[in-house]
Amino acid sequence: MMSAVDLPAAPARSFASDNFAGAHPEVIEAIRRANHGHAAAYGDDPWTKECEGRFRELFGADVTTLLTFNGTGSNVLALASLLGPADAVVCTDWAHIAVDEAGGPERILGAKLIDLDAPGAKLTPAHLEDQAHLLGNLHHAQPAVVSITQSTELGTVYSVDEIGTLCDTAHRLGMTVHVDGARIANATAALGGGAAALRAQTLEAGVDVVSFGGTKNGLVGGEAVVFLRPELARRAPFLRKQVTQLPSKMRFIAAQFLALLDDDLWLRSAAHANDMAVELHRATAALPGLDVGPAPDVNSVFPVLPATVIEPLRAWCFFWDWDVPRHQVRWMTAWDTTPEDVRMFAAGVAAASEATASKN
Amino acid sequence: MMSAVDLPAAPARSFASDNFAGAHPEVIEAIRRANHGHAAAYGDDPWTKECEGRFRELFGADVTTLLTFNGTGSNVLALASLLGPADAVVCTDWAHIAVDEAGGPERILGAKLIDLDAPGAKLTPAHLEDQAHLLGNLHHAQPAVVSITQSTELGTVYSVDEIGTLCDTAHRLGMTVHVDGARIANATAALGGGAAALRAQTLEAGVDVVSFGGTKNGLVGGEAVVFLRPELARRAPFLRKQVTQLPSKMRFIAAQFLALLDDDLWLRSAAHANDMAVELHRATAALPGLDVGPAPDVNSVFPVLPATVIEPLRAWCFFWDWDVPRHQVRWMTAWDTTPEDVRMFAAGVAAASEATASKN
Amino acid sequence: MMSAVDLPAAPARSFASDNFAGAHPEVIEAIRRANHGHAAAYGDDPWTKECEGRFRELFGADVTTLLTFNGTGSNVLALASLLGPADAVVCTDWAHIAVDEAGGPERILGAKLIDLDAPGAKLTPAHLEDQAHLLGNLHHAQPAVVSITQSTELGTVYSVDEIGTLCDTAHRLGMTVHVDGARIANATAALGGGAAALRAQTLEAGVDVVSFGGTKNGLVGGEAVVFLRPELARRAPFLRKQVTQLPSKMRFIAAQFLALLDDDLWLRSAAHANDMAVELHRATAALPGLDVGPAPDVNSVFPVLPATVIEPLRAWCFFWDWDVPRHQVRWMTAWDTTPEDVRMFAAGVAAASEATASKN
Amino acid sequence: MMSAVDLPAAPARSFASDNFAGAHPEVIEAIRRANHGHAAAYGDDPWTKECEGRFRELFGADVTTLLTFNGTGSNVLALASLLGPADAVVCTDWAHIAVDEAGGPERILGAKLIDLDAPGAKLTPAHLEDQAHLLGNLHHAQPAVVSITQSTELGTVYSVDEIGTLCDTAHRLGMTVHVDGARIANATAALGGGAAALRAQTLEAGVDVVSFGGTKNGLVGGEAVVFLRPELARRAPFLRKQVTQLPSKMRFIAAQFLALLDDDLWLRSAAHANDMAVELHRATAALPGLDVGPAPDVNSVFPVLPATVIEPLRAWCFFWDWDVPRHQVRWMTAWDTTPEDVRMFAAGVAAASEATASKN
Repeated sequence: MMSAVDLPAAPARSFASDNFAGAHPEVIEAIRRANHGHAAAYGDDPWTKECEGRFRELFGADVTTLLTFNGTGSNVLALASLLGPADAVVCTDWAHIAVDEAGGPERILGAKLIDLDAPGAKLTPAHLEDQAHLLGNLHHAQPAVVSITQSTELGTVYSVDEIGTLCDTAHRLGMTVHVDGARIANATAALGGGAAALRAQTLEAGVDVVSFGGTKNGLVGGEAVVFLRPELARRAPFLRKQVTQLPSKMRFIAAQFLALLDDDLWLRSAAHANDMAVELHRATAALPGLDVGPAPDVNSVFPVLPATVIEPLRAWCFFWDWDVPRHQVRWMTAWDTTPEDVRMFAAGVAAASEATASKN
Repeated sequence: MMSAVDLPAAPARSFASDNFAGAHPEVIEAIRRANHGHAAAYGDDPWTKECEGRFRELFGADVTTLLTFNGTGSNVLALASLLGPADAVVCTDWAHIAVDEAGGPERILGAKLIDLDAPGAKLTPAHLEDQAHLLGNLHHAQPAVVSITQSTELGTVYSVDEIGTLCDTAHRLGMTVHVDGARIANATAALGGGAAALRAQTLEAGVDVVSFGGTKNGLVGGEAVVFLRPELARRAPFLRKQVTQLPSKMRFIAAQFLALLDDDLWLRSAAHANDMAVELHRATAALPGLDVGPAPDVNSVFPVLPATVIEPLRAWCFFWDWDVPRHQVRWMTAWDTTPEDVRMFAAGVAAASEATASKN
Repeated sequence: MMSAVDLPAAPARSFASDNFAGAHPEVIEAIRRANHGHAAAYGDDPWTKECEGRFRELFGADVTTLLTFNGTGSNVLALASLLGPADAVVCTDWAHIAVDEAGGPERILGAKLIDLDAPGAKLTPAHLEDQAHLLGNLHHAQPAVVSITQSTELGTVYSVDEIGTLCDTAHRLGMTVHVDGARIANATAALGGGAAALRAQTLEAGVDVVSFGGTKNGLVGGEAVVFLRPELARRAPFLRKQVTQLPSKMRFIAAQFLALLDDDLWLRSAAHANDMAVELHRATAALPGLDVGPAPDVNSVFPVLPATVIEPLRAWCFFWDWDVPRHQVRWMTAWDTTPEDVRMFAAGVAAASEATASKN
Repeated sequence: MMSAVDLPAAPARSFASDNFAGAHPEVIEAIRRANHGHAAAYGDDPWTKECEGRFRELFGADVTTLLTFNGTGSNVLALASLLGPADAVVCTDWAHIAVDEAGGPERILGAKLIDLDAPGAKLTPAHLEDQAHLLGNLHHAQPAVVSITQSTELGTVYSVDEIGTLCDTAHRLGMTVHVDGARIANATAALGGGAAALRAQTLEAGVDVVSFGGTKNGLVGGEAVVFLRPELARRAPFLRKQVTQLPSKMRFIAAQFLALLDDDLWLRSAAHANDMAVELHRATAALPGLDVGPAPDVNSVFPVLPATVIEPLRAWCFFWDWDVPRHQVRWMTAWDTTPEDVRMFAAGVAAASEATASKN
């Protein structure tokens, strides 16, 4: 294994995750400004009211929005609102809810997750059709809620048509559709940006509920569950408290979201992160011994590296494994990644890969 | 019913709850300072490490501390860590976990809460002895975890001896003891203040796990589960993720706690809130038609008011009902309540009660 | 303490519980007859179809009936069918579901049981009215299902009017009503006997779902959940499997119920058990040192005994404690209790109580 | 599609499932004999004590046995006893617990089932090694209990060595091993028969807990959870009640098991069922258009049939689909299948397949 000392200076920011990034300065400023006097707790405050209105504007519809602390909580609240007795959730076997939430969905929902093999981490109508034979069979949990991730855990993006067809199939089979949108801003930027792209892939495509991510896109911490069909939110206020996701001083989460939605900061930040990933991909695609895969749709690159360079590079500038047997890792950009960060990181990767290549 | 227009100018801050208050400016400043560059997510960052060390110093022992988002989450995590199969929680029928968490503990823990009638919202050793006959009887959930609230939901405070005796009884019966310390700062201030008072009522009294509150004592949002016997925390890191309480950008919660623990801000804030409640009690105790009860131990007063004044006063300056049939309400002070707030609020109460008295 | 040798010969059958009794011979014969060739599993067999029809006849309505193994399972299935997200169950603090099912309802339902202090183990409309303030308050699990036990855990019986008023109140508040009828046969016998009495206290009173007991009334084992409003049973077939209560060879449970319903065996057996309890009460009411309470409505007597006689009597012929501090026990008769059993048991009680009285 | 009228007379017994069969006459007789007088409920009776002793003899060790109603309940009780906080179950994606229990395990256990792709429905040590990377990672439910089915849902049988190696791997990784032995009698017969074969594949192989099937092997209804390491049963009595699986008149289940264990009836019945499957396989293997696969290890054949014959054959003599897209079905024999049943069923299959072949 090579020594880490062979590498150039590391970038100021890691490529580990968009949750290694801090908060956008405007978000911090929004918290500071909201810290004024008393405000009713649990969401009965002006910031939260305004935030709810802003989501209605964003979606151009009478959506119901509930703020929460984090992504797992957001997903659990959304699914708890959709699931009926004996129902199951259909998702991919890459789904964050199935893999990365420590069994929380099963524990809190008491429901089975039917996690299907799905190349590119994307469900298709055929996946749903295949589950339809379970419907009405009393020996099986009933597939009732489809949960997709946009953008996916593999950095892919469902097209508007793909989501539309999936929703049509789901609804025809009597199922509802949830989008885990921890990175829906990145997907929206990838699909053209703007409220139109957001609406096209959600409301207009037929999605029922969205977990709308904030934390990975520059908040200190905060997510929003947006019920596109408000009748589905009937029990959500009670469920939010029940699943431990009711913030008492909610104004501080609402204020963060207001900053994020102001002047399309959410889209500008996401588009920037996406661009930095494209730049990182471009800067490393030709290096010897790497397979960086196709150009990224959003803010992550999933390269396959020579086995010997992974640990030295990771020690130099941290990132996560993705598929250990394949030596695949994940490099992720964030709202605050700079071109200089990309340049420096790519230089390190180049140095490592060339050192390895020269040994072979 | 009287008209609200009879009342003087309302105070700048309500007496509704300590979670209507904002965050202490030093807490906001700590968040701002922590927003620097990248930091590992999920608690593997310097702020969290430092915070864990600060809790070890505070308790003077090798405690294990896990930061969480809110009080319900904190309680659920603590109880999930303590409960074994078929176990039940023993608490009072005033307990926040039993009454005010929307059934979350039952849902997430899958466990029964045995909520006992308890004057002053305080459990006694006799309560535990009475439950002992269930032990070993396979028809009953097994009472295994005792959860007390300090200070209690009725504003009372367990003495160090009371907690010690309760812990001794619990441990003798094979039970563990959890303290819901959403307001343990106020209790600590009431018991003399300082780390010594904290340790006396927890570690030295035999408590096993504490939900150590931050939000109600001037944080934007953040709680800490402190395992006083670290072996009880063995599964807590997994459980925290599972119950949706793992903050990804944990540095921002750690930084808030660091600010709170600096220079005893947590105790100064709590002592101030307690003092303001004493002052409010003093200023209203002699008013006609009110029964403000005994002088408060911590930061709340639970007066019984003439039925007709409740709504006008509430419309003027909001507060919560406590025991509706008895016309009992709760007035609560916070870290930011000023003597002027107290004076103005008491003046309003006086005006309302005198107007009522003159009609009778 | 007296010696057990002072007592006369013990009766052939205990007065411990109706589940210490075996099965009625006609039930055994029904099992034997059903054991003929193959039959579709999971209820798709002729015995089950016939049984479902017999319950429709019995209630005179298009009820939906699902057979289960035992009472806890029956209650859990009924409640799981009624509960929505964030809902809670309202019951007494004597309720079998709250006290004697080892926390199973909380674990499987993930729901809070609001167990209320209720003299005679009977809920009243006032109990429900008192809970109504929780409705719509997002901090509280929502009281949505009322579960009463008929006859109750204290051997009392709700009158038809009492149930009717309770159902009216529940429905007005948006709640549904479940009857834990583990001993509904005994209650029906007490209310006059016959299908008319059954319908009056259930369907006509407004009850939504009944756990209709079989095991305590002479079956080897079997219960039935009868949905009086069939639309409430929509998810029950799936839930029955999910909560582990779907018998594979269901014909054998159906056949038992068919035997029980033939020629009103269920009512004859229950009426006999009730009569035996009246006889036992009569035979012991005048004994010195006992307080046998009022004449029983159903098949149990709850005497308060001199402390010193409880253990010797129990060693001689087993029975259960009921309220230990008060020295109250339960004597229960069954379908197979004979007048001779009663005579012999009363003779033993007399011998014990007179021996004690003579010492004082 | 062909007409059903082309087929010869159908056999007296179906080939649908061993739970379509009734009970062995000796089992019915045992129930009848146990119906004598009163007996303590909930297992404190002589039949249950004797049954517990018989299982200790059978396994030749101090095992702890708890009787239950059905297989789902048995599995849930076993797993609930083994699972700790945040733990997950590892199984195949054919596992009954994962596929055929309507999501009951997830609901009642609140735990994730990690269901792995496994040819032949058999886990290997490599499956467990692959999951080991999740251990200690707080984002993932912790694989802690391995559940295998013996014989499997595909009619295969683990060898003694395969189970031994799996147990060694599991234990080395800190996991425990549960065997869903709904058909362990058939597996035992396949592995040579006798207590020695039972012990070799369970106790001696290192298995921790067995769900020991009774219902599919000739009982009216009854299963046994056998804890081979009794310390794992510490909470099982409470959990059995909690998961609704505590029979009140337990003597009737114990008596059935006593009959099953007498004179090796359990093994004789299972061996007979296995033999009938071999005979059915032999009688159909050469028919045109069928692929009956390899000779069966236990009591089921999984043939792939011409699509057009499935429905007519099923209408004539019922059986279940197994893999719909592949036109694979399951034919299952039982303790009561006769050679004449096999002959008649094979004749019908032959008639159907030949009619189809002649059309092509």
